[in-house]
Amino acid sequence: MFKALKEKVLEANLLLPKYDLVTFTWGNVSEIDRENGVIAIKPSGVEYDVMSADDIVIVDLDGRVLEGALNPSSDTATHIELYKAFSSVGGIVHTHSRNATVWAQAGLDIPALGTTHADYFYGDIPCTRQLTPTEIETEYEKNTGLVIIEEFSRRDIDPKAVPSAIVSGHAPFSWGKNAHDAVHNSVVLEEVAAMALATRSLNSGIKVQQELSDKHYNRKHGKNAYYGQK
Amino acid sequence: MFKALKEKVLEANLLLPKYDLVTFTWGNVSEIDRENGVIAIKPSGVEYDVMSADDIVIVDLDGRVLEGALNPSSDTATHIELYKAFSSVGGIVHTHSRNATVWAQAGLDIPALGTTHADYFYGDIPCTRQLTPTEIETEYEKNTGLVIIEEFSRRDIDPKAVPSAIVSGHAPFSWGKNAHDAVHNSVVLEEVAAMALATRSLNSGIKVQQELSDKHYNRKHGKNAYYGQK
Amino acid sequence: MFKALKEKVLEANLLLPKYDLVTFTWGNVSEIDRENGVIAIKPSGVEYDVMSADDIVIVDLDGRVLEGALNPSSDTATHIELYKAFSSVGGIVHTHSRNATVWAQAGLDIPALGTTHADYFYGDIPCTRQLTPTEIETEYEKNTGLVIIEEFSRRDIDPKAVPSAIVSGHAPFSWGKNAHDAVHNSVVLEEVAAMALATRSLNSGIKVQQELSDKHYNRKHGKNAYYGQK
Amino acid sequence: MFKALKEKVLEANLLLPKYDLVTFTWGNVSEIDRENGVIAIKPSGVEYDVMSADDIVIVDLDGRVLEGALNPSSDTATHIELYKAFSSVGGIVHTHSRNATVWAQAGLDIPALGTTHADYFYGDIPCTRQLTPTEIETEYEKNTGLVIIEEFSRRDIDPKAVPSAIVSGHAPFSWGKNAHDAVHNSVVLEEVAAMALATRSLNSGIKVQQELSDKHYNRKHGKNAYYGQK
Repeated sequence: MFKALKEKVLEANLLLPKYDLVTFTWGNVSEIDRENGVIAIKPSGVEYDVMSADDIVIVDLDGRVLEGALNPSSDTATHIELYKAFSSVGGIVHTHSRNATVWAQAGLDIPALGTTHADYFYGDIPCTRQLTPTEIETEYEKNTGLVIIEEFSRRDIDPKAVPSAIVSGHAPFSWGKNAHDAVHNSVVLEEVAAMALATRSLNSGIKVQQELSDKHYNRKHGKNAYYGQK
Repeated sequence: MFKALKEKVLEANLLLPKYDLVTFTWGNVSEIDRENGVIAIKPSGVEYDVMSADDIVIVDLDGRVLEGALNPSSDTATHIELYKAFSSVGGIVHTHSRNATVWAQAGLDIPALGTTHADYFYGDIPCTRQLTPTEIETEYEKNTGLVIIEEFSRRDIDPKAVPSAIVSGHAPFSWGKNAHDAVHNSVVLEEVAAMALATRSLNSGIKVQQELSDKHYNRKHGKNAYYGQK
Repeated sequence: MFKALKEKVLEANLLLPKYDLVTFTWGNVSEIDRENGVIAIKPSGVEYDVMSADDIVIVDLDGRVLEGALNPSSDTATHIELYKAFSSVGGIVHTHSRNATVWAQAGLDIPALGTTHADYFYGDIPCTRQLTPTEIETEYEKNTGLVIIEEFSRRDIDPKAVPSAIVSGHAPFSWGKNAHDAVHNSVVLEEVAAMALATRSLNSGIKVQQELSDKHYNRKHGKNAYYGQK
Repeated sequence: MFKALKEKVLEANLLLPKYDLVTFTWGNVSEIDRENGVIAIKPSGVEYDVMSADDIVIVDLDGRVLEGALNPSSDTATHIELYKAFSSVGGIVHTHSRNATVWAQAGLDIPALGTTHADYFYGDIPCTRQLTPTEIETEYEKNTGLVIIEEFSRRDIDPKAVPSAIVSGHAPFSWGKNAHDAVHNSVVLEEVAAMALATRSLNSGIKVQQELSDKHYNRKHGKNAYYGQK
């Protein structure tokens, strides 16, 4: 069962090393089948070059393993919380990609500084607050998801309009309408994080014009989009 | 018709991933056939590894599609304005290459800091002013071309002598005598942008000597050039 | 004799160019066979692409060559001191990988700034004091080992919990339970060094939360670890 | 004639793209045959992937072409001056490799900050003074060589001990006992330039200990060297 879903999730996971987003096994991609209430996710600590579709683990929304001989990613509980809270999300990626992680370590939002960012992210990419000692101690991975959700709720951000977050002191999570789309967004996240880092070193106070941000986001998204093919 | 032109434009577009100037489909190259009044340009949002010469779109100077089943690049109107204003230009490239985009995001000219720059660009590479909200709202891509032209006119820069511009908050455009030459200049632009970024971090006030800039530019260009083969 | 050990050490040495940790021959990996009291180590100044298992040199803990026609790495005496002092260590790597070396040249610890670091290193990665002129003049390579050991002793750091050190003005040493594991740690060291460099440029005062450091280290190490497969 | 010399110089030139030291044709390598008083050098502006040994140009020490149908590198006069002044030099490389060029553009010596540098360069790598307008206007390439020689003479530096220089506002030149060795040194130059750039961003006042510099240089060079194989 879920053979096609596992194949898609395997392929999406293999894009992580292709796009230089991971060192060793430091990343995981999942996709949800909302009709059947299951998530397919990378197994924990398995190398990409020996992973097969059969290694992909199927869990339910309580994190119980339904299929697969291996442990699911240790970050599974984070994915689950995001799927529960963000109903538009079909795929999730977690990496420690270098430049996005740098912003997470610095505890700073990735600021919207140009149209490259605006094409994919409508506004700054939020950095969460730090987890409390208690949140770290108990159900840490679940609380990592909750602190992302809290940040989007507090700032009233639509997760479709800003498909990534960075967790303070940790690293980024990205999402999309499926696993492949989530990986696509994580590639863009890493690129805009790198650009923002260098831009701020040249001009520390700069921000993108709001109108330019609106234009580029709307040119690619929403009902009047005119980028790409119909 | 225009088969040879489409082939050349396809090949030039494929150089963008080869030289690491693009992520996904973020770039486009065009070439003009001035005799026939047509431009061949990349289709919008199509991946480089599946693109064929037949996918290249032929438009006239009013942007009307003459040949091709796909939408032309959403930046077509920018290319058209540049071809209209810069009569010496035969090919145009737009990318979001990392370091040139960083300078655009910072809203700063890429300063001439050495002979690598001077070999290709006679003086600073100008960053345009920001577009007004009205220019962004209506005919945005056309206005992007116009603001580049305005900057070259205002500073009295010959587009042959400085074959690139960066658009504030956005990214670079480069040009040349044909599509291939334009890509060549966009590779150099990215390299000098990277060098300038690091140079300014070491020595914030440095500029290249005017005489050195003159010498290197004239050594490669103009009637007394002596670089390369005759 | 020691054929299997030599093969393992050859393979581990060949990972250094694979992971972009070395320029030319600037790196060496060794593994100890504690039962037999011998160390297998890379020969000095031999190119990776022509090295064979027979070129790997077997030395005893006094540095005497037991097998092999070539000189052992000039850093052999450093490896020996580390093996003598750190009884849990089975493999050692020395490289001049760019970002870790930058921290060594700056004479600064690589600070623990996030969970990527915490997954492998429990706390800052120590930079040694400078060697004295006398320590440099006589038995320099042995003293390089001793100054690392002194730093771990002075700060009461368990070499299993922090499997790398950087030597002031010089470069990093990493270790692990065997040669392969030591190389793995040297890859992580280089990545966290790069991230720390950029993080400090964004936010010069930042540190990781102690609780987050504890959590991530313990999630992967020790008796309650739950990362990876059992 | 000079077939073996041309082959060696071709091979050395092809190492430049292999080691990522050049964009397009921006680099050239030469080797001198002192017995016959001839220099073999790359032709000007020819792409590396189509270059053959027959394209290598043989010139005498007055720059006259003795063999070859193509123009020699436009930097030939610089090479000639260096060969004349530095009798120990057998091969010379000129590139615009990114990080070494950054230091040249900043007009600053590349400071000796660690043992990676000390293994190859005994002390700072000097940046020349700027050329005067007259030196730029007339016999520019010859004067580029002379200003390097002047700097080594003024500071009393042995070109064997510091086998590279950077020319203010321009780029590096490296040399060695033959063409291959010169390329080797230009690879190291680029690496230490990159390390020094990042090191200074972390710790702006740092210098390597003189004793450490002495030790590492002497460990690899001179009569008591013990690095590598005999």
